[in-house]
Amino acid sequence: MRGNSFGKLFSITSFGESHGEAIGAIVDGVPAGLKFSFEDLSRELKRRAPGQQKGTTSRKESDTPEVLSGIFEGKTLGTPICVIVRNNGQQSADYKKLKVEHRPGHADRTTELKYGIRDHRGGGRSSGRETIARVIGGYFASLVLPQLKVIASISQMGKLSKSDLADQVICENYLETLKNDGDSVGGKISLSLDGTPVGLGEPAFDKLKADLAKALLSIGGCVSFSYGAGEGFFSKSGKEISEDSGHFGGIEGGISNGDNISLELGFKPVSTVGDKAKEGRHDPCILPRVIPVVESMVKLVIVDHFLRQNAYQLETKL
Amino acid sequence: MRGNSFGKLFSITSFGESHGEAIGAIVDGVPAGLKFSFEDLSRELKRRAPGQQKGTTSRKESDTPEVLSGIFEGKTLGTPICVIVRNNGQQSADYKKLKVEHRPGHADRTTELKYGIRDHRGGGRSSGRETIARVIGGYFASLVLPQLKVIASISQMGKLSKSDLADQVICENYLETLKNDGDSVGGKISLSLDGTPVGLGEPAFDKLKADLAKALLSIGGCVSFSYGAGEGFFSKSGKEISEDSGHFGGIEGGISNGDNISLELGFKPVSTVGDKAKEGRHDPCILPRVIPVVESMVKLVIVDHFLRQNAYQLETKL
Amino acid sequence: MRGNSFGKLFSITSFGESHGEAIGAIVDGVPAGLKFSFEDLSRELKRRAPGQQKGTTSRKESDTPEVLSGIFEGKTLGTPICVIVRNNGQQSADYKKLKVEHRPGHADRTTELKYGIRDHRGGGRSSGRETIARVIGGYFASLVLPQLKVIASISQMGKLSKSDLADQVICENYLETLKNDGDSVGGKISLSLDGTPVGLGEPAFDKLKADLAKALLSIGGCVSFSYGAGEGFFSKSGKEISEDSGHFGGIEGGISNGDNISLELGFKPVSTVGDKAKEGRHDPCILPRVIPVVESMVKLVIVDHFLRQNAYQLETKL
Amino acid sequence: MRGNSFGKLFSITSFGESHGEAIGAIVDGVPAGLKFSFEDLSRELKRRAPGQQKGTTSRKESDTPEVLSGIFEGKTLGTPICVIVRNNGQQSADYKKLKVEHRPGHADRTTELKYGIRDHRGGGRSSGRETIARVIGGYFASLVLPQLKVIASISQMGKLSKSDLADQVICENYLETLKNDGDSVGGKISLSLDGTPVGLGEPAFDKLKADLAKALLSIGGCVSFSYGAGEGFFSKSGKEISEDSGHFGGIEGGISNGDNISLELGFKPVSTVGDKAKEGRHDPCILPRVIPVVESMVKLVIVDHFLRQNAYQLETKL
Repeated sequence: MRGNSFGKLFSITSFGESHGEAIGAIVDGVPAGLKFSFEDLSRELKRRAPGQQKGTTSRKESDTPEVLSGIFEGKTLGTPICVIVRNNGQQSADYKKLKVEHRPGHADRTTELKYGIRDHRGGGRSSGRETIARVIGGYFASLVLPQLKVIASISQMGKLSKSDLADQVICENYLETLKNDGDSVGGKISLSLDGTPVGLGEPAFDKLKADLAKALLSIGGCVSFSYGAGEGFFSKSGKEISEDSGHFGGIEGGISNGDNISLELGFKPVSTVGDKAKEGRHDPCILPRVIPVVESMVKLVIVDHFLRQNAYQLETKL
Repeated sequence: MRGNSFGKLFSITSFGESHGEAIGAIVDGVPAGLKFSFEDLSRELKRRAPGQQKGTTSRKESDTPEVLSGIFEGKTLGTPICVIVRNNGQQSADYKKLKVEHRPGHADRTTELKYGIRDHRGGGRSSGRETIARVIGGYFASLVLPQLKVIASISQMGKLSKSDLADQVICENYLETLKNDGDSVGGKISLSLDGTPVGLGEPAFDKLKADLAKALLSIGGCVSFSYGAGEGFFSKSGKEISEDSGHFGGIEGGISNGDNISLELGFKPVSTVGDKAKEGRHDPCILPRVIPVVESMVKLVIVDHFLRQNAYQLETKL
Repeated sequence: MRGNSFGKLFSITSFGESHGEAIGAIVDGVPAGLKFSFEDLSRELKRRAPGQQKGTTSRKESDTPEVLSGIFEGKTLGTPICVIVRNNGQQSADYKKLKVEHRPGHADRTTELKYGIRDHRGGGRSSGRETIARVIGGYFASLVLPQLKVIASISQMGKLSKSDLADQVICENYLETLKNDGDSVGGKISLSLDGTPVGLGEPAFDKLKADLAKALLSIGGCVSFSYGAGEGFFSKSGKEISEDSGHFGGIEGGISNGDNISLELGFKPVSTVGDKAKEGRHDPCILPRVIPVVESMVKLVIVDHFLRQNAYQLETKL
Repeated sequence: MRGNSFGKLFSITSFGESHGEAIGAIVDGVPAGLKFSFEDLSRELKRRAPGQQKGTTSRKESDTPEVLSGIFEGKTLGTPICVIVRNNGQQSADYKKLKVEHRPGHADRTTELKYGIRDHRGGGRSSGRETIARVIGGYFASLVLPQLKVIASISQMGKLSKSDLADQVICENYLETLKNDGDSVGGKISLSLDGTPVGLGEPAFDKLKADLAKALLSIGGCVSFSYGAGEGFFSKSGKEISEDSGHFGGIEGGISNGDNISLELGFKPVSTVGDKAKEGRHDPCILPRVIPVVESMVKLVIVDHFLRQNAYQLETKL
């Protein structure tokens, strides 16, 4: 496969270009008999949709999901679930001017180098719209482990610190100024996981921290990952660290220990700047919209590892 | 599988506990006809072996590789290559005292929670000796892409900065003091990749940065990963970033662009501290020994993606 | 995953229940730049659709494909291709009477045992309609290796021999009588592959014959697989066999040798018999409609192995 | 990977050439805490070893297993189990004469075509010795599901029918005559599985019959696979079949129904004939030695599917 599937026992296969017919996901490995709510799925997708905040993109994306398979009489069948979202609101005409320009830090140039052809309609597979597939997957993951609470929050956005971020007026003015300047900023997201079952992660390559890192670095714009004490791990000695088990961020030896898991991610500024960025449809900062995507990727990892660990629990079966 | 294999077309399957008979790897997907050098493989393993530096562990580990398959008359056969390293020097008796104690931040406790049984001989699969398998894999990866140059170096070690690290006396005294105190430190490793082919990495989940993050976070003690401008991504705006393509660290849209790829990793202090750490066989800092492991994991990722990309190049075939 | 994906480098992921919204496939691993023809895809799907022959099901299934992703300006993008076929013609009301009855030899009972719930609308994932996904995959496989010619033909159908089968009147009368009797028959299909590249298949588990067997036995109703001389392998001695290389059916040591590959498959009678079978929508023999499915599965295997072999061809690359 | 691994949750990775240092397997996915018996493992390997019967190869292969990892104090650790068997008894000198000759129906020629190089020492990966890895895997599979009884028996050997086969004198004379003539024969093996858990197999590609077919066709020399009523499926009508559920061979809709599963396999005559075949070390018929290999492959499939099914059983966990 060409990297469009994620997960071993609970997996999503993502498809769709930003300006094609539809974006969607096949979610495979959802156990049978779980209760499905169209409203909950739609709400999750809405959290990711553009146009929710002043200063953010003015695109109208309704992002209404359509369930094609795997659900019957309000419950999961245990068969693959296909959900699509039509790209109705896309006007690829607007993107035609990109035909000759490559945005630095964006996939435009490398995609062309890779495939030998160019989809000049827009971001193609590398568009932010591909994250719809991830949010769909995250919703179904939450059905398997409802006790798992994953909360992401912005801890830094450009020059705004955590306290600035608490004030929505400061935030929105900052984003509006960036938008007017055709500029963009990156920042940091903190993640807190409660309710992770004990014993998830494998001792060698599939350590829980490794699979979380892969999941999160697979999000466009994500440039760094750390867990636990972060910088504290480098400034403190082993003796100091060992006094406070909280430093280990819920993962020891790559395996979950049942404690709260804490992660921090860094995101670079979005690539589209200058006059193009002023025209509309471009966010000066993706952090607000990336929140549900980040949470979804974490859920996919935890649920996949939960099923993997469950496979080897035989006591009650034999 | 239980996470003991890494890579899709160029893969290693790792096996062995630190105090079992042997540690080893099966390297699968090595093309046929590549020249094998026992000396080069041994040299790589020696770089990882303990006892190379003052202040580091006094364990005697000869780490002599034994090739069981896949090589014939000095060349690769295209069949799976099995290399083992016997655990001759291990005295598991010394580790018996760990039977009741769990080291914080170590896999001891979580491994027991996961499997329901305890291998009290030592680190088991979570031991640093498991990294032998990775160095074996890295050696064979370098046969496939000899033009790829991966260089890792320590950029911070506990309180020592980059300039301190250049002075070996300062370094060795620092490590010796830590050893005598039964203490340990973490630090940072910088990685530079030259010669990565263009177009590696997939647009969705298997972005090159994502697979590099997974590979490196799968190393025991690694707690953070970043690429490109690092902190610069958060302090600078999109306009500032776009002026210098070097910020993107050789990866755009998750796909290699042919530029030098730069990564930075953080490592936490080793878990064994106090009297146990003074007794011998424990390093106060794993950074020096982790260098070849880090380089090997990067090579495994690049070569695997190189073969994956090669699979779809059909022009010259049809 | 739960067995809804097939292939490693060229893969299809199948989804959809027979009486749900749609049946479809994601085809991943199609190289970029190949010319797509909507007409050719539709024609392949039509070969599989019901109602083509007297005595066969009277269901009206238009089976019009809808391409949701992966195609742009008439060419493949190298991104995952999603094609769906709506289940417009399905009247699940008719299937409600199945709610309490299980058909012997059909998935009804085992599916319920497996998932703990019942989709009483009809065949669900085990319906013949699931094969739409396979025909979609087969069409795209043929774009990668146009020189590969795969031809399946019925060599036995119930009591009809090969010579009877040549006479369409005999055939249609036979099927009509079975239909009126509410009875069904099985039979045999012969497959001939021309143009298979040399060197496909791996020496251990992924022998070409093994992957062909899996692909074909994954089709509902298929109960046997053989290649090469078939019964001749058991009645003749090694000396006799070695005199005629044609016996080996194009595969030696599990690897293709460039010769014509010959396979034979057996199919059991369809499970629905009696009054239910008379009511319409049920074929007395699935062989005529299974032909394009069988051909598609073979193409998927050959193209997947072709890309796998191509991955390791480095001469022209380095 | 290059097809040297088999199984998803319970997997074996096979390595070793017939005339290299060793043949072996890594068995991954064995749950922790299962009781290991060196004697039982050795006994299984002995069943496969040559020289057990008059008329069979006179090679002396001790085939003593050496366990390198995954076992501690007589129990499985849950970590990968590596077992090797040294190739002590091999005299590759004898095989040098094969350097220029290719045996028809053997991997000699296709392997050379595939890899571009030749291992003229003998069968290489395509040797019957590779099956040692499979028997090792089968032994560990039997620890997971001890209630599963898999019994293979020869139902036809060249011209000998089932009743002839019951008489060991007839058998041994027949094999001895073939050996003296430098000739070989194929035949058929019947398989009976008792104790397969209900609900194994997936509705689409990973039907139980499909994975069994792949497993068994991956054995060198196997040319056909059928399950259930076999030829009865083609001579009887659907009505006749539906009267006797035994026809379905324990699998309905690709999923196990708890009944006895019956399979039949065909094997071609071994490729080495003429003077070479008289020289020793070559069996005139591989059926007697293939019995434990066939049983092992079946166990691997059933146990893998058992763990896969177990992964999704959540009732008792949440």
